[in-house]
Amino acid sequence: MRELKIFSGRANVDLATKICRHLHLDPSAITLGKFPDGENYCKLDEDVRGRDVFLVQPTSPPVNDNLFELLIMIDCCKRASAERITAVIPYYGYARQDRKDEGRVPITAKLAANVITRAGADRVLTMDLHAAQIQGFFDVPVDHLYAAPVLNEHFAKMGYDPNDIVIVSPDEGSIKRALGHKKRLGGTLAIVDKRRTSATQVSQNTIIGGPVEGKIALMFDDMISTAGSICGAARLVHAAGAKEIHIATTHGVLCGPAIERLRDAPIDSIVVTDSIPIPAEKQLPNLVQLSVAPLLAEAIKRIHHDQSISELFRER
Amino acid sequence: MRELKIFSGRANVDLATKICRHLHLDPSAITLGKFPDGENYCKLDEDVRGRDVFLVQPTSPPVNDNLFELLIMIDCCKRASAERITAVIPYYGYARQDRKDEGRVPITAKLAANVITRAGADRVLTMDLHAAQIQGFFDVPVDHLYAAPVLNEHFAKMGYDPNDIVIVSPDEGSIKRALGHKKRLGGTLAIVDKRRTSATQVSQNTIIGGPVEGKIALMFDDMISTAGSICGAARLVHAAGAKEIHIATTHGVLCGPAIERLRDAPIDSIVVTDSIPIPAEKQLPNLVQLSVAPLLAEAIKRIHHDQSISELFRER
Amino acid sequence: MRELKIFSGRANVDLATKICRHLHLDPSAITLGKFPDGENYCKLDEDVRGRDVFLVQPTSPPVNDNLFELLIMIDCCKRASAERITAVIPYYGYARQDRKDEGRVPITAKLAANVITRAGADRVLTMDLHAAQIQGFFDVPVDHLYAAPVLNEHFAKMGYDPNDIVIVSPDEGSIKRALGHKKRLGGTLAIVDKRRTSATQVSQNTIIGGPVEGKIALMFDDMISTAGSICGAARLVHAAGAKEIHIATTHGVLCGPAIERLRDAPIDSIVVTDSIPIPAEKQLPNLVQLSVAPLLAEAIKRIHHDQSISELFRER
Amino acid sequence: MRELKIFSGRANVDLATKICRHLHLDPSAITLGKFPDGENYCKLDEDVRGRDVFLVQPTSPPVNDNLFELLIMIDCCKRASAERITAVIPYYGYARQDRKDEGRVPITAKLAANVITRAGADRVLTMDLHAAQIQGFFDVPVDHLYAAPVLNEHFAKMGYDPNDIVIVSPDEGSIKRALGHKKRLGGTLAIVDKRRTSATQVSQNTIIGGPVEGKIALMFDDMISTAGSICGAARLVHAAGAKEIHIATTHGVLCGPAIERLRDAPIDSIVVTDSIPIPAEKQLPNLVQLSVAPLLAEAIKRIHHDQSISELFRER
Amino acid sequence: MRELKIFSGRANVDLATKICRHLHLDPSAITLGKFPDGENYCKLDEDVRGRDVFLVQPTSPPVNDNLFELLIMIDCCKRASAERITAVIPYYGYARQDRKDEGRVPITAKLAANVITRAGADRVLTMDLHAAQIQGFFDVPVDHLYAAPVLNEHFAKMGYDPNDIVIVSPDEGSIKRALGHKKRLGGTLAIVDKRRTSATQVSQNTIIGGPVEGKIALMFDDMISTAGSICGAARLVHAAGAKEIHIATTHGVLCGPAIERLRDAPIDSIVVTDSIPIPAEKQLPNLVQLSVAPLLAEAIKRIHHDQSISELFRER
Amino acid sequence: MRELKIFSGRANVDLATKICRHLHLDPSAITLGKFPDGENYCKLDEDVRGRDVFLVQPTSPPVNDNLFELLIMIDCCKRASAERITAVIPYYGYARQDRKDEGRVPITAKLAANVITRAGADRVLTMDLHAAQIQGFFDVPVDHLYAAPVLNEHFAKMGYDPNDIVIVSPDEGSIKRALGHKKRLGGTLAIVDKRRTSATQVSQNTIIGGPVEGKIALMFDDMISTAGSICGAARLVHAAGAKEIHIATTHGVLCGPAIERLRDAPIDSIVVTDSIPIPAEKQLPNLVQLSVAPLLAEAIKRIHHDQSISELFRER
Repeated sequence: MRELKIFSGRANVDLATKICRHLHLDPSAITLGKFPDGENYCKLDEDVRGRDVFLVQPTSPPVNDNLFELLIMIDCCKRASAERITAVIPYYGYARQDRKDEGRVPITAKLAANVITRAGADRVLTMDLHAAQIQGFFDVPVDHLYAAPVLNEHFAKMGYDPNDIVIVSPDEGSIKRALGHKKRLGGTLAIVDKRRTSATQVSQNTIIGGPVEGKIALMFDDMISTAGSICGAARLVHAAGAKEIHIATTHGVLCGPAIERLRDAPIDSIVVTDSIPIPAEKQLPNLVQLSVAPLLAEAIKRIHHDQSISELFRER
Repeated sequence: MRELKIFSGRANVDLATKICRHLHLDPSAITLGKFPDGENYCKLDEDVRGRDVFLVQPTSPPVNDNLFELLIMIDCCKRASAERITAVIPYYGYARQDRKDEGRVPITAKLAANVITRAGADRVLTMDLHAAQIQGFFDVPVDHLYAAPVLNEHFAKMGYDPNDIVIVSPDEGSIKRALGHKKRLGGTLAIVDKRRTSATQVSQNTIIGGPVEGKIALMFDDMISTAGSICGAARLVHAAGAKEIHIATTHGVLCGPAIERLRDAPIDSIVVTDSIPIPAEKQLPNLVQLSVAPLLAEAIKRIHHDQSISELFRER
Repeated sequence: MRELKIFSGRANVDLATKICRHLHLDPSAITLGKFPDGENYCKLDEDVRGRDVFLVQPTSPPVNDNLFELLIMIDCCKRASAERITAVIPYYGYARQDRKDEGRVPITAKLAANVITRAGADRVLTMDLHAAQIQGFFDVPVDHLYAAPVLNEHFAKMGYDPNDIVIVSPDEGSIKRALGHKKRLGGTLAIVDKRRTSATQVSQNTIIGGPVEGKIALMFDDMISTAGSICGAARLVHAAGAKEIHIATTHGVLCGPAIERLRDAPIDSIVVTDSIPIPAEKQLPNLVQLSVAPLLAEAIKRIHHDQSISELFRER
Repeated sequence: MRELKIFSGRANVDLATKICRHLHLDPSAITLGKFPDGENYCKLDEDVRGRDVFLVQPTSPPVNDNLFELLIMIDCCKRASAERITAVIPYYGYARQDRKDEGRVPITAKLAANVITRAGADRVLTMDLHAAQIQGFFDVPVDHLYAAPVLNEHFAKMGYDPNDIVIVSPDEGSIKRALGHKKRLGGTLAIVDKRRTSATQVSQNTIIGGPVEGKIALMFDDMISTAGSICGAARLVHAAGAKEIHIATTHGVLCGPAIERLRDAPIDSIVVTDSIPIPAEKQLPNLVQLSVAPLLAEAIKRIHHDQSISELFRER
Repeated sequence: MRELKIFSGRANVDLATKICRHLHLDPSAITLGKFPDGENYCKLDEDVRGRDVFLVQPTSPPVNDNLFELLIMIDCCKRASAERITAVIPYYGYARQDRKDEGRVPITAKLAANVITRAGADRVLTMDLHAAQIQGFFDVPVDHLYAAPVLNEHFAKMGYDPNDIVIVSPDEGSIKRALGHKKRLGGTLAIVDKRRTSATQVSQNTIIGGPVEGKIALMFDDMISTAGSICGAARLVHAAGAKEIHIATTHGVLCGPAIERLRDAPIDSIVVTDSIPIPAEKQLPNLVQLSVAPLLAEAIKRIHHDQSISELFRER
Repeated sequence: MRELKIFSGRANVDLATKICRHLHLDPSAITLGKFPDGENYCKLDEDVRGRDVFLVQPTSPPVNDNLFELLIMIDCCKRASAERITAVIPYYGYARQDRKDEGRVPITAKLAANVITRAGADRVLTMDLHAAQIQGFFDVPVDHLYAAPVLNEHFAKMGYDPNDIVIVSPDEGSIKRALGHKKRLGGTLAIVDKRRTSATQVSQNTIIGGPVEGKIALMFDDMISTAGSICGAARLVHAAGAKEIHIATTHGVLCGPAIERLRDAPIDSIVVTDSIPIPAEKQLPNLVQLSVAPLLAEAIKRIHHDQSISELFRER
């Protein structure tokens, strides 16, 4: 079997290192950096000829730098005769620009897929895509993982009495996700309802289901970006008398006013994965970062050995 | 300006004829059929050299026959030196197979996009795609129309007092659509709620908002296929005391038990467009078929003359 | 060596099953069907990751359904990370539309090749193409088999005295084929001559060569479609005093008036292969169906093991 | 309308000049030649930006030089921003290598099509392809002309009494062609028969149809290469008592022993077109060269003006 | 003629504005920016359907942001049905990574070309590429301009006595460039010689040609990046007694220690073009910025009107 | 491991034979030739199914014939199901046409790359490309070797006292190359200077560095084509009193007046490699032909076994 090699871009070196540790591999040596004029350079310090190469690079902010570094790494491996190049993109940037909902706008998520493929990626490994249809933006195989089991395992370890848990969906679009977690964690379901009593105004002041009062409220979302919506939901749940509030997300983008909002919201813990690195200044005291490295490592191992992924990784 | 030519496949000749009538054009002559062994044949009976050709063919059932006939027509026009070929696909079949929600399944909506492009289509004109992301399955320009104005106009002509109207969303996924119609037609909003009081069971017995009693209930969806969901909603709304119930959809697929269900449901009128032809045996007495021909004709005219479509056709 | 997997589409499950039996393999599990609206679905029930996959699907009538099912299976296997996908197309539909012999017609045989490749087929295994040039419609490798040895073996087993045999070419385009069979089976050659004594009229009433009287006449063609031509030849040979008449073909398309014509013609046996399934209602008492499964099985085995095919399978 | 420009490669400058004369155009200025190491150079001496460019270059012997010069001219025009590039290939070399009739051989006619398209040709104008399926080797539009009317016109001008004419097909593969000419020129049909009386030997000593004796025999073929077959037929027809023998072909390849054979055969006139230039040393006294320049000029004019070609140019 | 539209990315809005002014056009309206998470957005505020669109965006630092913004603009215009998209890239970033001079490195200049083309650019207009071979990295037409006339015109206006001028080539690779300028500006040639007297050491202390003493020294280069080499040359020329020293370059990248070095070097004026914007903090008192806007405007006008560029713009 | 097969085109059979000898392999059997009309034919006489195939063919003069033969061989191997096809092109013809230095010319080096890839080459192995940027003309991996070590080894064997050696760069463009050889062979450096004392005329009468008198002068270039420049340099060095003059080059194109010039020049030995075959009539008495077969053989072995090439082969 051709040898497995894992290279990390500079977007999330920690994650790549952990993945390698799980596989009892050293990360392959690569020199990455910028010239004085800001142009990226890349040099593989190990031979990849005929190897099965995985390039770990979430396209998290700064997205253009990270995406282009990924493209350069792919070009580099292709010209160095790698047998197969898998782009491991734990967080797929530009995912929300996935269609034209008005005229004269780009479909940047498709553009990103096109340039990744054009650069020479043979396959893609990604996680919790904002829209599942993005898989169809590629004609190369895409393995799409879910981080939900990692989040569930965290809460399962907490030893909560299922009778104390309420899974709160922060909006109507997340009910399916909430139900998935409820199936694993138990508890009841509540939904923060942005619907209109008068049918003309959106007001977030209703909670359906529950009850919430006196319960441990768990809220899940695929990504937390500016944190406006989730913090609003937390305040509502808090007002309804929840005794603890925990929020959990796969992708901790945490941009703009996110940290300030999260600091001010009545949230007991904020659980994120390490699909995106959280710099020190964003690490709130109540932030818990779980690792998706074991999940990605197992997927890489199975891809490398041509073993089924679909059998192992279910949505939740 | 190069000449405009419109050819119709056999999926919906009536629609194409109406489009042409709106453009004061004769449909261009084409011979289409099947050989004794079931293979399609196609011969253009007019010159298309240097022309701006539009091929009208929804990929409605029988989808494989209609899709392949479209491909053959495209191949034919390409080899006959058409200047530009626009596939006019008022109903885009296979749209619901737009992602892998489990392992080892195809993304047939992408496959369809790939073969349409491979055959030689330069652009696509379509309507009310099941998922807007399908636009991104193409790298050629896609003009995506909405039939909502056609449906709205129908109900506006009814002269209902807005105070009598309740727009009912048949499920939580259609709220955005319902709000769009409410904005044009007035009335209040109600939502058929499949949510769980006990958070463990799905039961459709709640209506949020409204009130419904004594009102004229209007329900909208992008397509009606086997009609199970919409008929269930109609029964619920009926039980809640609505005085009239009207349902409206862009794409009247009406397959399997649809006709039987619709006949049995407490529905006053069923409004569909002619994106898909409705054969005589499916034309229930309370079925109203509106034409999207003027909409498609206007779009074709604007595409042909390089005029903006986005300025004209808003979602709803 | 990567594992071999054979999946069958629904065009000819019997053939695929026989191929697998020859290879001591179980056909791989796949779920194929149609939704109520007639759209195909497909789900592989076995892992194909890194496997060497063969998809058995003649594009026989109904050609569009069978062809599109093949495309969907290919897309499915590609996205499920098959190492290599070989489309096994024992009968290649649309083969007769292989050129423009007049203006404004498609070249559908090329279109079919284009979409098969676009869907993701890495190679093609086919048999007795109507025109050998169709190989050049593909840029992927095509292995092109001949069923002639199977037909010859059948007649060889009959134990005819070569002196009793006359190989009759049913028209001038089949002389090369007839000579090939004569080389293996012995006998003399006769040709049904559609040429003109007066050079202005085509009349089929001449037989060149032979003699035919008192002989066992064997007639071969690549496909029998509506059976008009071959039945005419049979009547002529019968009138010339042949004591037995047998016709043999690779592809038993048998469409339109074929069965009626064959039933009425003075033919002792009709030999076809199982490249296309013959439904019960077409199985005339004098129909003999030979299997090309061993031939296809051997080819698949050799392709899988990178062994030469050209050394084994000669035209006849 | 964008301006029409015609450039000639060096394969057949005379033909290009004549085409231009028919169009009242000067051939566009281009510098073509070879460096001392034999590498071709090319420089357009006129602007082609936005122009409709036709490049006249049969890929006649020396085929590799002529084909590669064509590719270079296409690359040159593409990079110089021509609006549309039509490769005018009156004789398409490598046409006989159009399929794999044994293992491990190329399909060079497809390779030629691939590289012509890859270089950047937008369309192809060609004449009397050896196999019509070669049109399907291209995905760009191919206009396929027939020189038969030019040949027919020549003989029509001779003023022969149709009762004196016999159209002789030199082999069974040319009967269709012969019938086409007979339809225009009158006369009877005869066929040189390579069939076997004994069915084991090929002997050319039969003529079917006719009669030939005392007649003016006309024989047609698409190309004359080494002239072996046609000269054999001529001798047979001569032995049968024809009073005059004329042979006519579109493509006068005339290679190897062709000139010697033609000089020695009992042929009154050899009619060829100027699709391929005939050097002085090959111009036998009885050689008549007709020009296809008017035909190609008319086709170019119609392509340029987006007028139908199929209406004008029928096979024969 | 289809309408001309010019959009500017955010890399160099001033340049685009000047180009438009020269063409008496308003820059077309476009909304560009970044979301809170750093992802670019783009919306065309004018219709581009059927228009001839030029997108002005040098890929100067920050190169990844500027390059990706260009790609998004292209995608946006393509999906909005622009007739033709020309990427106007006055400075082509990543140009120095144009080959593999060691193993396992990328060819980023080719990667950039590939993604620009993949996004949908129909043609490229660029200026003073670092290596002319980069034109060949594209298969779409590239128009390659030279800024030398702009620089020459500046010095010509100074009214120097040609006898006072010495054109100094800062290294051996720039001699050809220096000669070009000398041809226009007069003067003598001098070369800063990095060659070795002892043939083992590189020392920059020789000036060949000249003389330099008492002369006005003019030095030209295609780009000034960290300014190390040019400042060293300036010191040498100064030590040799030049009375004035002026340096001129097309692309003022001016990164890293460039400003500090230039401030400290004995240079009278630094002439750059506006292919790259010079922020206020880099505008040294002796910096002169010339505009290439008239040159680009003329090229755009000629491309739009299908007029020759090669006739107008010579290298120098 | 899949089997290695090496086929030789007809451009340099001797080189291929030597490569095979170094690998203890027989060259694989192939039939190559021309039909009477000059069209190439090709037939593999060994199975290549699943093999790792290397095709040795420099595109030396006659370049079009050799290049097209290479394309045909690639097509042949691709259709015969080779696992991987490496085009081994020791001399890459058309390399000097690598950019547009004036309008309306082709970039033939890119065209050649495009058609080699289009035919189906999976990778390229080449040597001493005229411009390193040509690597970027390919998107498939290119392994680029240097013949310098072979040339150095030859001179090292001569046992010259390094104090007697002067490495002479024949022009300013070759200094880098000369320095590389000096590093290995010792000696001093001299440069033939075409610079201008008066700065208006080019005259070759200066030698910088050295001294040359009484020394053994060694001059290196990548190719010798018409030999004008190198012979001029030799005469100058001779006039300066060199006691021996040796010239060495990778590619001995030796076209036009090259042989005559070399015969007449004061050159003691002319060292070339066998990247291009030297016919008997060009083998001057002082010509030494070194073989690059071991170098190419080692590279092929390493490519086949997925071993690093970059570690082994440095530029010089």
